[in-house]
Amino acid sequence: MLALLTPFSRSTKSFRKDLLNVRLLLLFALIFTLIPIPFIKSQDPNQQPRPSASPTAAPTPLPPPTVKIDNYRAAAARIIGAALTSNRAYERLSFLTDHIGNRLSGSQSLDRAIEWAVAEMKKDGLDNVRAEKVMVPHWVRGQESLEMTAPVPRKLMMLGLGNSIATPVEGITADAVVVRTFEELDALGEKVRGKIVVYNAPFTNYGATVRYRSAGASRAARYGAVAALVRSITPVSLGTPHTGAMIYDETQPKIPAAAITIEGAELLQRMQNRGDRITLRLKMEAKFLPDAESANVVAELKGTERPDEVVVIGGHFDSWDVGQGANDDGGGCIISWEAARLLKELGLRPRRTIRVVLFTNEENGTRGGTANRETLTRPSCQNTCW
Amino acid sequence: MLALLTPFSRSTKSFRKDLLNVRLLLLFALIFTLIPIPFIKSQDPNQQPRPSASPTAAPTPLPPPTVKIDNYRAAAARIIGAALTSNRAYERLSFLTDHIGNRLSGSQSLDRAIEWAVAEMKKDGLDNVRAEKVMVPHWVRGQESLEMTAPVPRKLMMLGLGNSIATPVEGITADAVVVRTFEELDALGEKVRGKIVVYNAPFTNYGATVRYRSAGASRAARYGAVAALVRSITPVSLGTPHTGAMIYDETQPKIPAAAITIEGAELLQRMQNRGDRITLRLKMEAKFLPDAESANVVAELKGTERPDEVVVIGGHFDSWDVGQGANDDGGGCIISWEAARLLKELGLRPRRTIRVVLFTNEENGTRGGTANRETLTRPSCQNTCW
Repeated sequence: MLALLTPFSRSTKSFRKDLLNVRLLLLFALIFTLIPIPFIKSQDPNQQPRPSASPTAAPTPLPPPTVKIDNYRAAAARIIGAALTSNRAYERLSFLTDHIGNRLSGSQSLDRAIEWAVAEMKKDGLDNVRAEKVMVPHWVRGQESLEMTAPVPRKLMMLGLGNSIATPVEGITADAVVVRTFEELDALGEKVRGKIVVYNAPFTNYGATVRYRSAGASRAARYGAVAALVRSITPVSLGTPHTGAMIYDETQPKIPAAAITIEGAELLQRMQNRGDRITLRLKMEAKFLPDAESANVVAELKGTERPDEVVVIGGHFDSWDVGQGANDDGGGCIISWEAARLLKELGLRPRRTIRVVLFTNEENGTRGGTANRETLTRPSCQNTCW
Repeated sequence: MLALLTPFSRSTKSFRKDLLNVRLLLLFALIFTLIPIPFIKSQDPNQQPRPSASPTAAPTPLPPPTVKIDNYRAAAARIIGAALTSNRAYERLSFLTDHIGNRLSGSQSLDRAIEWAVAEMKKDGLDNVRAEKVMVPHWVRGQESLEMTAPVPRKLMMLGLGNSIATPVEGITADAVVVRTFEELDALGEKVRGKIVVYNAPFTNYGATVRYRSAGASRAARYGAVAALVRSITPVSLGTPHTGAMIYDETQPKIPAAAITIEGAELLQRMQNRGDRITLRLKMEAKFLPDAESANVVAELKGTERPDEVVVIGGHFDSWDVGQGANDDGGGCIISWEAARLLKELGLRPRRTIRVVLFTNEENGTRGGTANRETLTRPSCQNTCW
């Protein structure tokens, strides 16, 4: 949902900070917001879905356009010109990432980012700028480490997974069992009792591979494993572990979970294939503090003809704690915000209200998105499209 | 010199651990060693270099081959077949990197690697297997860190450069000045006195860009800088600093030098461009211990017709202390060694002696290469080609 109008795909997590890309994507976002979208309420409930054309049939002609595109050419040209000659979005993104940095839910830096965005949006002259309070989980990483003690002593790069519990203070020292798939784990079953399960699943696509990060710990705990390590969910690595959220199955014992690098996972795989007995020591201090106050940042550009019909655009303002949250999802936030700012600067008022939302807590709770959705279930919000 | 017959180029430092590549490159190495190379001693000293053809002239016909290639087809086919069906080289490289790991000059792991190689080469039945003693520099990294204290507190990823001196225990805290080129530094001149100079030179090619790592510290020290930071010499980064050697100009004060990431260098550049005053604290414990005993590992396959004419192939066995030395240059060592092993296994004896040398201390001293060259200046070694 949150990614509907943010062009940075959450599924690839690739790095696309290139300025030109940001600008081009911004343009698409702008143009989409300008063209009146047929809202759900205007759809005919009796309308039947069109049967899809069979592969051999002639293509069904498109229905005539319901919008006179030509009416928007002049406005689109002004927006494109302004977007391609302004550095504002890039400057704001670089200030956000350089001076405020990463923004995990509950962190002071997320609070600072929210204050900064509200103040800047007011300077931009946007309407109804506000921070809508949301209580968020407050997970903190603490110190963490992973080392191999056998067959050779060696430190391994790791990052604890978001939502993971800690290990005991002295760490968990246990033999490792490497599997490439859940099926391999299931085949081993009780043989992993007391072991650290290492998921060495090569990246295919985000959705397919992220299951090992999300659900791997509880799946291993089902068979008595004492910790889970997951090969980072990425096709590219320079010894770089990726953090991300994991979710406990409440019916299983909770065990600590961390990401290791592709190189680390392949090292363990080679050692296992070679017949080595592998012993690892995992130490993690991760824990939840009491829920913290945070907020969705909201700003609007009031519509001229139908101000109570609202198009919501946005990104999520929180990030993990180990990068800068530039691509995930500072960029999505800034271009959504910039779309409204540019329209305001150009004196272009849309027919419907455009609402920019910088959601809090997407990474480890989606409390911001949930809270925002709940505001839209009120009868007065039935005309909102997001 | 050392790279003459090792197909892993030192100038690109790219990662090419792919097994197929290793095998194909191995084949080339093998074939090159089998074809009698016209040695320097057989060249006519009165021979004039052929004038190079002008761009418009018809291409000069190649001279007739001096070797009957057909005589080697059967042997080449056996070598290719054996190389493409053997995992030995990959298994040895992975054992070297997984179980012994990185191998900085003076380290216990380099000693272990040398002992292992000598023992394995003897098992292979190679001739005259030996470790030729070489005294090497013994630089140790110690603890090190870099943090920004202004405009915002932030840790920066770094790796001290090989051969660098330490900072005082409390570190060096100073303002940073970012330059993209030596020319920018020279234009600033005395303005960098008391400052930490940051070289943010984008990668063009290794030779052109590595100058900032090799010579940047002394060039900055000339103007009174107190430390130097160098953007890592690579076109690719995931927040990954690259270590490597630096060399002090003995006529200038010695100042500590470290590599930072591309991302870190660009962050500092953006901050400087924005007008921020940047303050950094660099801490390094790097130092030289007394020279340590090491060795070049040497093994031969004695020639049948001209055993005193020698073709040297090899790689360097030492590596930096922060990786595994797989590509730089474990791979070069193992394929050189494997070339001789395969010939031995196949019962193929070359006409001239093939000598495999796993050189020590290429990374920070080239003492192994120098020592080996000195053995070749003896009159009895005039027939050696390497």
